[in-house]
Formats: sequence, structure tokens, C-alpha cells
Amino acid sequence: MGLRDEIFEQPETIARLLERQTDPVAEIAARINERGVRWTYLAARGSSDYAGLYAKYLWGAVNRMPMALAAPSLFGVYRRPPAIGDALVVGISQSGRSPDVVGVLEEGRRQGALTLAVTNDPSSPLAAAAELVIDTMTGPETAVAATKTYTAQLTAVAMLSAALSKDREQHGWLRRLPALAEEVLALDAVVDTAAERYRYMDQCVVLGRGFNYATAHEWAIKLKELAYVAAEPYSSADFQHGPVALATQGFPVFAVVPGGEIFDNVMKLLRQLVSELGVELLVVSNERAALDLAHTPMSLPGELPEWLSPIPAIIPAQLFCYHLTRAKGFDTEQPRGLTKVTLTW
Amino acid sequence: MGLRDEIFEQPETIARLLERQTDPVAEIAARINERGVRWTYLAARGSSDYAGLYAKYLWGAVNRMPMALAAPSLFGVYRRPPAIGDALVVGISQSGRSPDVVGVLEEGRRQGALTLAVTNDPSSPLAAAAELVIDTMTGPETAVAATKTYTAQLTAVAMLSAALSKDREQHGWLRRLPALAEEVLALDAVVDTAAERYRYMDQCVVLGRGFNYATAHEWAIKLKELAYVAAEPYSSADFQHGPVALATQGFPVFAVVPGGEIFDNVMKLLRQLVSELGVELLVVSNERAALDLAHTPMSLPGELPEWLSPIPAIIPAQLFCYHLTRAKGFDTEQPRGLTKVTLTW
Repeated sequence: MGLRDEIFEQPETIARLLERQTDPVAEIAARINERGVRWTYLAARGSSDYAGLYAKYLWGAVNRMPMALAAPSLFGVYRRPPAIGDALVVGISQSGRSPDVVGVLEEGRRQGALTLAVTNDPSSPLAAAAELVIDTMTGPETAVAATKTYTAQLTAVAMLSAALSKDREQHGWLRRLPALAEEVLALDAVVDTAAERYRYMDQCVVLGRGFNYATAHEWAIKLKELAYVAAEPYSSADFQHGPVALATQGFPVFAVVPGGEIFDNVMKLLRQLVSELGVELLVVSNERAALDLAHTPMSLPGELPEWLSPIPAIIPAQLFCYHLTRAKGFDTEQPRGLTKVTLTW
Repeated sequence: MGLRDEIFEQPETIARLLERQTDPVAEIAARINERGVRWTYLAARGSSDYAGLYAKYLWGAVNRMPMALAAPSLFGVYRRPPAIGDALVVGISQSGRSPDVVGVLEEGRRQGALTLAVTNDPSSPLAAAAELVIDTMTGPETAVAATKTYTAQLTAVAMLSAALSKDREQHGWLRRLPALAEEVLALDAVVDTAAERYRYMDQCVVLGRGFNYATAHEWAIKLKELAYVAAEPYSSADFQHGPVALATQGFPVFAVVPGGEIFDNVMKLLRQLVSELGVELLVVSNERAALDLAHTPMSLPGELPEWLSPIPAIIPAQLFCYHLTRAKGFDTEQPRGLTKVTLTW
């Protein structure tokens, strides 16, 4: 088993999660409704933090729950935690062993908050600290870079949203997710060829907005971890408030821009970046207009609701990082300076 | 008036703000206490967003109020705002004219929330949308890169914290702030000489944690806007969850690490980065151990509480960006691709 196998395993891990956890997640949603919780406080690190960012948009838009991303140092280092007793306190961690994330859940429970762990290890300290647990059930992940555990975390987030909304259409789309993941994996050969061009790229920006703000972050961290590219993620709005100054003729801009409510907003910026500054675009989209604007287009399935798109959209990005890392001659399994479980306080 | 003048004006703008707004801010604090608000929802963009990040830590640690950073696209683009009626909804904007920030305050007010604008223009749409207003009173800022308006926003955040806590020591330190700002401006000649070395640097990371997580962000955006350096900000904890893979022999790591509760935590990482990876450190600190570890040390005033340090700590960083921009031969007043007021939805 290695990174490539784990990327290709995703239709199966997502299908297993949907099959085995839909009922437990419905019970968790019932507990949340019972308690009348109205906002969420979320602790996570690295890729898990980006699953949290997806939750911030999805639970915000669909379930109207605002989310505060935790400042873990207020708990572990300053020991002056804010008052979170009336929140749903959520911890997301593949290993369930990041002490700072566990610390936030323990404090939440001490304050009387309802606590939820989303983890790949139901026997972990994080699961032990939480009242409610969603087991992401992907099996062991051996590559240091998270792939199947990330899409499982996103799927768990979307499952909880659907369970809270009781929206049949949302549930229907979730059932189609394994097939959608399968469909994007077919891009492998195209992405392999496309990655070659970026062999000597050492920096880039990754744009996404709304639901796919998380995708921009996850893609950027993978580019950093695996291919040592200084990739910076931005919402297309934040990018215009300063960082756009970096963009010059030929500067590589990666963009995740599926069809949906955010589309026109992001496209306006992309058109401007191409026509006025001459940047080079790599685009993940299911819209012809966006793909046509790109030097390197990567197609998503045509029919795909924007709220669900972050799950299939990260898969071509994972493939891209895998192939770019090989093109650069680096180790895809054991990036320098990283370990699978990072213990931070 | 230009960027350099505005940097040097800061002791005066901070003094004016303290003198003229302490009473209005006390009234605002009384209104917040009266309403029994227990959490904050904050909308801002660019540098103002980093002032919000400072508020997240300061209001969290000192005033126990958790903060959710807004997802403006949920309001302006998706038109599916979360339920924020029981929050203190805060908008921070120098110009008060960013439509997405104004939109969040308008929706907050519609939902019955208490709303607060922190702006340099009390006749702006943002001020009109809010029930409560803190005028940062810096006078016009002509350079595109925000300097005196950023420290004024931080000062306003700290003033509100002190007004809510009614802590005499906090108030006492605030009164010393103009003198502290004056003291760091004396670093100008040292910083000018130090910046030369970085003439050909095109990427770096900027580390900070806790109260100075905001400083890391603000320094990084200034490096991008003015000197076109791909500078990435990280908390020292997040840095270990992936991006550390970028660090190799000689890689430039900038760190803001004043004495205080976070000090040992950040120093442990810095020592490891130097001894194991051989990175090159530039450090802003008032602790000998941190300054001695750095190739380029920049000294903060010796006696300085950590919660207040982000205000003087950004000033040597501003001077550094100014001198580096000149060393690189770029325009300090009008960076490419940027305007003073950025209109995003």
C-alpha cells in the first residue's frame, strides 16, 4: 500500500463510510437537535482543519450554524479557554492523538458542551474525550500525506449536514458519491501528462471560494508536503486584498471553480488575471468556460452540486501532486521532516 | 506623505486614538455587557482581518468570548447566512467600504444582533450599518499598504478588551503604548542595514503564535504586497503539520517570538529548525535567547506584556518591508495590481 493505492481506494472508503455510519450519524444529529445547539466550535490541525473549513461553509449555508475555528493555544498554552459550554465542540483528527485537539474537547466537556470527535481511530484519546464519535473507517493510512482520510472527513461532514437537514436530495447525492469519485480517478493518465510541465515550478497560488475554499487549502498543503512547492491558498476575494501583487506574466494560478453560485464571482477574477496579467491557469471545473480559459484543464463530472463538489474536486488535485512529486524525483511516501502523527500543544 | 511617514506617525496616531476614544469605547463595552453577548462574529479582509485575528486571541483569553471569523460568501454570494442574532457582529475596515464586510453587518442587524464597526471613516457605509462605531482616527492613509491604520485597529481591539475587563493593569499598559511604538521606531537604521541581505529572497515563512499569530499574517501580507516575496504565515503548531517540509538548509524563517506564555513553545520549534535543518532565522523578540539564535535579530522593548506585543512588534516588520522594497527597487507607495479600497463581494 502506498499513496497511489490510497488515492485509488477512495470510492471504496467513501462507500463503506456511507454504508456503515449513516445510522450512527442520524443518531448524532438527533442528539444535536435535542440539545438545541446553535453554533459549533472546531479544533483540528493540517488537512483535518480543512475538513473543518468545509464544515464551516456547509453547516453554515445548509444548517445555518455559524462556526468558530478554535484557537488551541488558548487552551493548551495560555490556559485561558473561552466560554464554549453552549456550543457543539468538534474535534477532527485522523489519528485522534493530537494533544491540542484533544485538549479543546476535554475543556468543552468540562464546560458542559456537547462534544463530537471525527476520527479514523475510535479507540483514540480524541474519541475517548468526546461524547459523540463518527468513525471515518478508512482503515490504516500508510502514506504520510492524507488522502483517503481527508475525503472521509469531508464525507462525514456532509453526512452530518444531511442528517441535520433531513433533506432527501442531499441524501440522494451522497449515495452517488462513490461513483463520482470513481469517475474523477479516470483522469489519472491526463493528469500524469499535465504534471510534467510543472517540473520546475517552485511557487504558485491555489484559488477557491465558498465550499471549495477548503479544497484550495488542501491542495496547497499537499503541494508543499509532497512536492516542496511554496503553494499559497486563497479565497478569490482575499487574493484581491494584497496577494494579487505576486501575480505576473506566466505566474502559475491553480483554481478550483465548479459550476454553482460562486462561479461567476471567481470567473470574473480569473478572466482578469489572464487578460490583464497573463498568468497561467490550471483549472479544476465542470464548466466549459472555466476549462477553456486554462492552459491545463482538469474536468469534473458534469452534474455535480457545488456543496458536494469539494469531495470529487480534491481527487484530481491529489493525483496531480502524486505525479508532480514523481516528476520532481521526490519520495511520495515519506516527505522530509514529516511524521504521520504530529504532536503539538 | 508616504509609507515611511505613515510608519513614523504611529506613536502619534495611537496616542490620539487612546486620548479621544477611551470614553466612547467604555460606553460600547457597557452596551455589550448590558446585552449579555457571549460570542463574537467578525468580518474583515486583508490587514483588517489580521486585526480580527488579534481580537480572536485577546477577547478569547482576557474576556472569554469565543470568536467566529465570518465566511462573507455565505452572505453576499450564497445568500444563506448563518444564525448570528445573539452574537456581537464586528466589521473591521479601514475605508468602511468593502461591500462584503458591510453585508455581514447589515445581516447581523437584520437578525437583531448588536453590531460594531471599527473603521477609519465614521461616515462610511460600514459605520452607517453598525449600531456602535469605533473611529480609529488616524487621518488619511495615502500609501496603499496599511500601516498606521493596522496598529490603530489593534489598539482599538485592545482598548475594547480593557474596557470590558476593567483591568487597571491593562489600561496602564495601553497608556504606555505610544512610547513603546516610539522606542521600536529607533530600530530604523539597524533594519535598513539588515534588509540588504534579503535582496534576492523570493520566498520565506513567517512564524508567530497566540497573540502574535496576527503579526505573522500582517508581516507576510506586507512582504507580498510591497516586496513581492511569497511569504507564508503560520502558527508554529500548524507549521509542523505539513509546511515544515519546505524548510531546508538556509531557508529563511522569520519569527515573532516575544517573551510570555507562548515563548518556550515557539522556541522549541525554532531551535529544532536551526539545529536539525539549518534554516536562517530572522527574529523579532525581547528575549536574549531568541535574539541570539537568529542571524538577524530585531529587539523589542524589554518590558512588554505578551498580549500587547503585537502592536509594537509589527513596527520593525513594517520598517523591514519598506527597506526591502527599496533594496529590490520596487515602488513603496503604489504596489502593482493593488488599489487602496478593494471592492469584493
